[in-house]
Amino acid sequence: MTEHKTILSHVARQISLTIEEEEEFVSILVSSKLKKKAHLITQDKLVDQLYFVVKGCLKAYYLDEAGNKHILQFAIENYWITDFDALENGVLSKLYIEVIEDCVLLSIHKDALAVLFTRIPKFERFFRILFTDAFIALRKRMMSALQKNSKARYIEFCENYPKIEERVTQYHIANYLGITAESLSRIRKELSQ
Amino acid sequence: MTEHKTILSHVARQISLTIEEEEEFVSILVSSKLKKKAHLITQDKLVDQLYFVVKGCLKAYYLDEAGNKHILQFAIENYWITDFDALENGVLSKLYIEVIEDCVLLSIHKDALAVLFTRIPKFERFFRILFTDAFIALRKRMMSALQKNSKARYIEFCENYPKIEERVTQYHIANYLGITAESLSRIRKELSQ
Repeated sequence: MTEHKTILSHVARQISLTIEEEEEFVSILVSSKLKKKAHLITQDKLVDQLYFVVKGCLKAYYLDEAGNKHILQFAIENYWITDFDALENGVLSKLYIEVIEDCVLLSIHKDALAVLFTRIPKFERFFRILFTDAFIALRKRMMSALQKNSKARYIEFCENYPKIEERVTQYHIANYLGITAESLSRIRKELSQ
Repeated sequence: MTEHKTILSHVARQISLTIEEEEEFVSILVSSKLKKKAHLITQDKLVDQLYFVVKGCLKAYYLDEAGNKHILQFAIENYWITDFDALENGVLSKLYIEVIEDCVLLSIHKDALAVLFTRIPKFERFFRILFTDAFIALRKRMMSALQKNSKARYIEFCENYPKIEERVTQYHIANYLGITAESLSRIRKELSQ
Protein backbone atom coordinates (compact mmCIF):
# COMPACT_ATOMS: atom_id res chain seq x y z
CA MET A 1 0.00 0.00 0.00
CA THR A 2 1.15 3.53 -0.75
CA GLU A 3 0.32 4.59 2.82
CA HIS A 4 2.70 1.99 4.16
CA LYS A 5 5.49 3.12 1.84
CA THR A 6 5.06 6.67 3.11
CA ILE A 7 5.29 5.80 6.79
CA LEU A 8 8.13 3.31 6.27
CA SER A 9 10.27 5.86 4.49
CA HIS A 10 9.45 8.38 7.24
CA VAL A 11 10.53 5.87 9.92
CA ALA A 12 13.65 4.95 7.92
CA ARG A 13 14.96 8.49 8.41
CA GLN A 14 15.77 7.51 12.01
CA ILE A 15 15.92 3.71 12.30
CA SER A 16 16.68 0.72 10.04
CA LEU A 17 14.10 -2.04 10.07
CA THR A 18 14.41 -5.54 8.65
CA ILE A 19 11.74 -6.71 6.20
CA GLU A 20 10.16 -8.76 9.03
CA GLU A 21 10.11 -5.75 11.34
CA GLU A 22 8.56 -3.59 8.61
CA GLU A 23 5.85 -6.21 8.16
CA GLU A 24 5.19 -6.41 11.87
CA PHE A 25 5.02 -2.62 12.13
CA VAL A 26 2.58 -2.12 9.24
CA SER A 27 0.39 -4.94 10.57
CA ILE A 28 -0.62 -2.73 13.53
CA LEU A 29 -1.51 0.29 11.36
CA VAL A 30 -5.11 1.09 10.52
CA SER A 31 -5.78 3.25 7.49
CA SER A 32 -8.64 5.75 7.35
CA LYS A 33 -9.89 8.62 5.21
CA LEU A 34 -11.45 11.76 6.58
CA LYS A 35 -13.18 14.61 4.81
CA LYS A 36 -12.60 18.31 5.35
CA LYS A 37 -14.33 19.64 8.52
CA ALA A 38 -14.48 16.17 10.12
CA HIS A 39 -13.25 15.98 13.71
CA LEU A 40 -10.71 13.33 14.55
CA ILE A 41 -10.79 14.20 18.26
CA THR A 42 -13.17 16.32 20.31
CA GLN A 43 -12.95 17.52 23.90
CA ASP A 44 -13.70 15.36 26.97
CA LYS A 45 -13.20 12.00 25.30
CA LEU A 46 -10.85 9.11 25.95
CA VAL A 47 -8.12 8.91 23.30
CA ASP A 48 -6.45 5.63 22.41
CA GLN A 49 -4.97 6.31 18.96
CA LEU A 50 -1.86 8.02 17.67
CA TYR A 51 -2.27 9.33 14.11
CA PHE A 52 0.23 9.67 11.27
CA VAL A 53 -0.70 11.93 8.36
CA VAL A 54 -0.13 10.26 4.98
CA LYS A 55 -1.99 12.98 3.07
CA GLY A 56 -3.98 16.07 3.91
CA CYS A 57 -3.89 18.74 6.59
CA LEU A 58 -5.32 19.05 10.11
CA LYS A 59 -5.31 21.50 12.98
CA ALA A 60 -5.29 20.83 16.72
CA TYR A 61 -6.96 23.55 18.76
CA TYR A 62 -8.59 24.13 22.08
CA LEU A 63 -11.29 26.45 23.30
CA ASP A 64 -10.59 28.72 26.24
CA GLU A 65 -13.15 29.46 28.95
CA ALA A 66 -14.59 32.30 26.87
CA GLY A 67 -15.00 29.96 23.88
CA ASN A 68 -12.11 31.41 21.90
CA LYS A 69 -10.25 29.03 19.63
CA HIS A 70 -6.45 28.70 19.91
CA ILE A 71 -4.61 26.66 17.28
CA LEU A 72 -1.83 24.63 18.92
CA GLN A 73 -0.58 22.62 15.98
CA PHE A 74 -0.94 22.05 12.27
CA ALA A 75 -0.22 18.63 10.80
CA ILE A 76 0.48 17.72 7.17
CA GLU A 77 2.21 14.78 5.46
CA ASN A 78 4.66 12.97 7.78
CA TYR A 79 3.39 14.63 10.97
CA TRP A 80 2.09 12.78 14.02
CA ILE A 81 -0.94 14.11 15.81
CA THR A 82 -3.23 13.24 18.72
CA ASP A 83 -4.10 14.61 22.16
CA PHE A 84 -0.83 13.37 23.65
CA ASP A 85 -1.79 14.06 27.26
CA ALA A 86 -5.00 12.05 26.87
CA LEU A 87 -3.21 9.23 25.02
CA GLU A 88 -0.31 8.92 27.47
CA ASN A 89 -1.98 9.69 30.76
CA GLY A 90 -5.50 8.38 30.27
CA VAL A 91 -7.09 11.77 31.05
CA LEU A 92 -9.97 13.14 28.97
CA SER A 93 -9.03 15.05 25.82
CA LYS A 94 -8.72 18.81 26.05
CA LEU A 95 -8.17 19.31 22.33
CA TYR A 96 -10.17 19.30 19.15
CA ILE A 97 -8.47 17.95 16.05
CA GLU A 98 -10.18 18.94 12.81
CA VAL A 99 -9.47 18.13 9.18
CA ILE A 100 -8.81 21.22 7.06
CA GLU A 101 -7.90 19.32 3.87
CA ASP A 102 -9.18 15.78 3.05
CA CYS A 103 -6.93 13.29 4.86
CA VAL A 104 -5.49 9.82 4.61
CA LEU A 105 -4.33 8.76 8.05
CA LEU A 106 -2.67 5.76 9.64
CA SER A 107 -3.51 5.13 13.26
CA ILE A 108 -1.84 3.04 15.95
CA HIS A 109 -3.72 1.92 19.05
CA LYS A 110 -1.86 2.71 22.28
CA ASP A 111 -1.85 -0.96 23.32
CA ALA A 112 -0.36 -1.97 19.97
CA LEU A 113 2.25 0.77 20.41
CA ALA A 114 3.19 -0.56 23.86
CA VAL A 115 3.63 -4.05 22.37
CA LEU A 116 5.65 -2.59 19.47
CA PHE A 117 8.12 -1.04 21.93
CA THR A 118 8.80 -4.42 23.52
CA ARG A 119 8.87 -6.35 20.22
CA ILE A 120 10.99 -3.84 18.24
CA PRO A 121 12.86 -1.59 20.70
CA LYS A 122 14.21 0.50 17.80
CA PHE A 123 10.87 2.28 17.97
CA GLU A 124 11.85 3.55 21.43
CA ARG A 125 14.67 5.34 19.62
CA PHE A 126 12.38 6.58 16.86
CA PHE A 127 9.89 8.13 19.27
CA ARG A 128 12.62 9.40 21.61
CA ILE A 129 13.99 11.47 18.73
CA LEU A 130 10.49 12.52 17.66
CA PHE A 131 9.54 13.78 21.13
CA THR A 132 12.91 15.39 21.78
CA ASP A 133 12.49 17.38 18.56
CA ALA A 134 8.87 18.19 19.41
CA PHE A 135 9.88 19.40 22.88
CA ILE A 136 12.64 21.60 21.46
CA ALA A 137 10.31 23.03 18.78
CA LEU A 138 7.65 23.86 21.37
CA ARG A 139 10.18 25.56 23.63
CA LYS A 140 11.44 27.62 20.69
CA ARG A 141 7.87 28.60 19.86
CA MET A 142 7.28 29.76 23.46
CA MET A 143 10.49 31.77 23.39
CA SER A 144 9.78 33.36 20.04
CA ALA A 145 6.24 34.27 21.14
CA LEU A 146 7.69 36.33 23.99
CA GLN A 147 10.76 37.54 22.22
CA LYS A 148 9.97 38.48 18.67
CA ASN A 149 7.68 40.86 16.88
CA SER A 150 4.84 39.55 14.73
CA LYS A 151 6.70 40.04 11.45
CA ALA A 152 9.71 37.98 12.62
CA ARG A 153 7.36 35.30 13.91
CA TYR A 154 5.47 35.14 10.61
CA ILE A 155 8.76 34.74 8.71
CA GLU A 156 9.79 32.02 11.16
CA PHE A 157 6.43 30.28 10.67
CA CYS A 158 6.90 30.26 6.88
CA GLU A 159 10.39 28.81 7.31
CA ASN A 160 9.24 26.13 9.77
CA TYR A 161 6.15 25.17 7.79
CA PRO A 162 7.07 25.88 4.15
CA LYS A 163 4.42 23.48 2.93
CA ILE A 164 1.64 24.59 5.23
CA GLU A 165 1.61 28.29 4.45
CA GLU A 166 -0.21 27.83 1.12
CA ARG A 167 -2.64 25.28 2.49
CA VAL A 168 -4.28 26.92 5.48
CA THR A 169 -6.22 30.14 5.63
CA GLN A 170 -4.79 33.45 6.78
CA TYR A 171 -7.21 33.24 9.68
CA HIS A 172 -5.56 29.96 10.78
CA ILE A 173 -2.06 31.38 10.58
CA ALA A 174 -3.02 34.55 12.48
CA ASN A 175 -4.68 32.45 15.18
CA TYR A 176 -1.66 30.17 15.47
CA LEU A 177 0.62 33.21 15.82
CA GLY A 178 -1.75 34.86 18.28
CA ILE A 179 -2.19 38.01 16.19
CA THR A 180 -5.19 39.57 14.41
CA ALA A 181 -5.98 38.80 10.76
CA GLU A 182 -5.49 42.52 10.04
CA SER A 183 -1.97 42.49 11.47
CA LEU A 184 -1.10 39.43 9.41
CA SER A 185 -2.47 41.02 6.27
CA ARG A 186 -0.38 44.15 6.88
CA ILE A 187 2.76 42.04 7.47
CA ARG A 188 2.20 40.06 4.26
CA LYS A 189 1.74 43.27 2.31
CA GLU A 190 5.00 44.69 3.71
CA LEU A 191 6.90 41.52 2.85
CA SER A 192 5.57 41.34 -0.70
CA GLN A 193 6.78 44.82 -1.57
CA MET B 1 28.47 7.35 45.84
CA THR B 2 25.26 8.94 47.08
CA GLU B 3 24.88 10.85 43.76
CA HIS B 4 24.89 7.56 41.89
CA LYS B 5 22.27 6.06 44.18
CA THR B 6 20.04 9.05 43.52
CA ILE B 7 20.24 8.86 39.73
CA LEU B 8 19.96 5.06 39.68
CA SER B 9 16.76 5.10 41.71
CA HIS B 10 15.43 7.86 39.43
CA VAL B 11 16.22 5.75 36.35
CA ALA B 12 14.75 2.64 37.98
CA ARG B 13 11.32 4.29 37.95
CA GLN B 14 11.20 3.62 34.19
CA ILE B 15 13.70 0.89 33.31
CA SER B 16 15.35 -2.10 35.02
CA LEU B 17 19.13 -2.26 34.74
CA THR B 18 21.43 -5.17 35.57
CA ILE B 19 24.32 -4.51 37.97
CA GLU B 20 26.69 -4.42 34.98
CA GLU B 21 24.48 -1.90 33.16
CA GLU B 22 24.29 0.25 36.28
CA GLU B 23 28.07 0.24 36.50
CA GLU B 24 28.45 1.12 32.84
CA PHE B 25 25.93 3.95 33.19
CA VAL B 26 27.52 5.54 36.27
CA SER B 27 30.96 5.28 34.65
CA ILE B 28 29.97 8.00 32.14
CA LEU B 29 28.66 10.40 34.81
CA VAL B 30 30.74 13.32 35.99
CA SER B 31 29.92 14.86 39.35
CA SER B 32 30.25 18.58 40.06
CA LYS B 33 29.27 21.13 42.69
CA LEU B 34 28.14 24.63 41.93
CA LYS B 35 27.52 27.56 44.23
CA LYS B 36 24.49 29.85 44.21
CA LYS B 37 24.62 32.46 41.41
CA ALA B 38 27.03 30.37 39.31
CA HIS B 39 26.06 29.96 35.66
CA LEU B 40 26.02 26.46 34.26
CA ILE B 41 25.25 27.71 30.76
CA THR B 42 25.35 31.16 29.20
CA GLN B 43 24.12 32.42 25.83
CA ASP B 44 25.95 31.90 22.52
CA LYS B 45 28.05 28.93 23.61
CA LEU B 46 28.32 25.36 22.39
CA VAL B 47 26.66 22.92 24.79
CA ASP B 48 27.81 19.31 25.08
CA GLN B 49 26.48 18.23 28.48
CA LEU B 50 23.15 17.06 29.81
CA TYR B 51 22.76 17.72 33.55
CA PHE B 52 20.91 15.79 36.24
CA VAL B 53 20.20 17.58 39.53
CA VAL B 54 21.15 15.47 42.57
CA LYS B 55 20.73 18.36 44.99
CA GLY B 56 19.92 22.06 44.75
CA CYS B 57 17.88 24.28 42.53
CA LEU B 58 18.45 26.04 39.20
CA LYS B 59 16.58 28.22 36.75
CA ALA B 60 16.79 28.32 32.96
CA TYR B 61 15.96 31.71 31.47
CA TYR B 62 16.51 33.77 28.38
CA LEU B 63 16.77 37.45 27.72
CA ASP B 64 14.50 39.03 25.12
CA GLU B 65 15.65 41.75 22.73
CA ALA B 66 14.84 44.41 25.32
CA GLY B 67 16.96 42.58 27.93
CA ASN B 68 14.00 41.29 29.95
CA LYS B 69 14.47 37.96 31.69
CA HIS B 70 11.95 35.15 31.11
CA ILE B 71 12.21 32.02 33.26
CA LEU B 72 11.53 28.92 31.16
CA GLN B 73 12.19 26.16 33.66
CA PHE B 74 13.09 25.45 37.27
CA ALA B 75 15.04 22.32 38.13
CA ILE B 76 15.40 20.63 41.51
CA GLU B 77 16.32 17.10 42.64
CA ASN B 78 15.67 14.49 39.91
CA TYR B 79 15.24 17.04 37.11
CA TRP B 80 17.25 17.11 33.91
CA ILE B 81 18.39 20.43 32.54
CA THR B 82 20.45 21.86 29.68
CA ASP B 83 19.90 23.96 26.55
CA PHE B 84 18.30 21.06 24.69
CA ASP B 85 18.30 22.77 21.30
CA ALA B 86 22.02 23.52 21.58
CA LEU B 87 22.80 20.00 22.84
CA GLU B 88 20.78 18.15 20.20
CA ASN B 89 21.24 20.37 17.19
CA GLY B 90 24.70 21.83 17.69
CA VAL B 91 23.44 25.43 17.53
CA LEU B 92 24.70 28.05 19.98
CA SER B 93 22.89 28.24 23.33
CA LYS B 94 20.05 30.72 23.66
CA LEU B 95 19.55 30.11 27.37
CA TYR B 96 21.19 31.00 30.63
CA ILE B 97 21.10 28.38 33.37
CA GLU B 98 21.86 29.76 36.82
CA VAL B 99 22.14 28.12 40.23
CA ILE B 100 19.66 29.52 42.75
CA GLU B 101 20.52 27.05 45.56
CA ASP B 102 23.95 25.32 45.89
CA CYS B 103 23.94 22.29 43.57
CA VAL B 104 25.32 18.82 43.21
CA LEU B 105 25.01 17.80 39.56
CA LEU B 106 25.80 14.79 37.43
CA SER B 107 26.61 15.49 33.81
CA ILE B 108 26.70 13.28 30.74
CA HIS B 109 28.63 14.29 27.63
CA LYS B 110 26.53 14.06 24.45
CA ASP B 111 29.01 11.63 22.85
CA ALA B 112 28.84 9.35 25.90
CA LEU B 113 25.04 9.55 25.72
CA ALA B 114 25.07 8.51 22.06
CA VAL B 115 27.24 5.50 22.95
CA LEU B 116 24.99 4.68 25.91
CA PHE B 117 21.96 4.47 23.58
CA THR B 118 23.71 1.85 21.44
CA ARG B 119 25.23 -0.07 24.38
CA ILE B 120 22.10 -0.09 26.60
CA PRO B 121 19.03 0.59 24.41
CA LYS B 122 16.81 0.67 27.50
CA PHE B 123 17.97 4.26 27.83
CA GLU B 124 16.16 5.03 24.56
CA ARG B 125 13.01 4.05 26.44
CA PHE B 126 13.97 6.08 29.49
CA PHE B 127 14.54 9.27 27.51
CA ARG B 128 11.55 8.63 25.24
CA ILE B 129 9.30 8.68 28.31
CA LEU B 130 11.16 11.68 29.76
CA PHE B 131 10.75 13.77 26.59
CA THR B 132 7.17 12.67 25.99
CA ASP B 133 6.29 13.85 29.50
CA ALA B 134 8.27 17.07 29.02
CA PHE B 135 6.49 17.76 25.73
CA ILE B 136 3.08 17.18 27.30
CA ALA B 137 3.92 19.37 30.31
CA LEU B 138 5.09 22.21 28.04
CA ARG B 139 1.95 22.01 25.92
CA LYS B 140 -0.21 22.14 29.05
CA ARG B 141 1.73 25.16 30.24
CA MET B 142 1.14 26.93 26.91
CA MET B 143 -2.55 26.12 27.07
CA SER B 144 -2.95 27.23 30.65
CA ALA B 145 -1.10 30.49 29.94
CA LEU B 146 -3.75 31.37 27.36
CA GLN B 147 -6.68 29.83 29.10
CA LYS B 148 -6.55 30.45 32.80
CA ASN B 149 -6.43 33.44 35.08
CA SER B 150 -3.34 34.15 37.18
CA LYS B 151 -4.83 32.68 40.35
CA ALA B 152 -5.65 29.34 38.71
CA ARG B 153 -2.17 29.27 37.16
CA TYR B 154 -0.51 29.95 40.52
CA ILE B 155 -2.47 27.08 42.11
CA GLU B 156 -1.48 24.85 39.20
CA PHE B 157 2.17 25.88 39.64
CA CYS B 158 2.07 24.93 43.33
CA GLU B 159 0.56 21.56 42.43
CA ASN B 160 3.07 20.88 39.68
CA TYR B 161 6.09 22.02 41.67
CA PRO B 162 5.17 21.31 45.31
CA LYS B 163 8.81 21.25 46.32
CA ILE B 164 9.89 24.32 44.41
CA GLU B 165 7.42 26.84 45.75
CA GLU B 166 9.25 27.25 49.08
CA ARG B 167 12.69 27.36 47.51
CA VAL B 168 12.53 30.11 44.93
CA THR B 169 11.70 33.76 45.43
CA GLN B 170 8.31 35.27 44.72
CA TYR B 171 10.00 37.25 41.97
CA HIS B 172 11.02 33.98 40.29
CA ILE B 173 7.53 32.52 40.46
CA ALA B 174 5.92 35.71 39.16
CA ASN B 175 8.40 35.82 36.27
CA TYR B 176 7.79 32.15 35.43
CA LEU B 177 4.03 32.79 35.41
CA GLY B 178 4.42 35.99 33.40
CA ILE B 179 2.69 38.17 36.00
CA THR B 180 3.86 41.05 38.20
CA ALA B 181 5.18 40.47 41.72
CA GLU B 182 2.28 42.64 42.98
CA SER B 183 -0.31 40.39 41.32
CA LEU B 184 1.32 37.32 42.82
CA SER B 185 1.40 38.90 46.26
CA ARG B 186 -2.32 39.74 46.00
CA ILE B 187 -3.15 36.18 44.88
CA ARG B 188 -1.18 34.64 47.76
CA LYS B 189 -2.96 36.92 50.21
CA GLU B 190 -6.35 35.89 48.83
CA LEU B 191 -5.48 32.21 49.05
CA SER B 192 -4.18 32.43 52.60
CA GLN B 193 -7.43 33.90 53.91
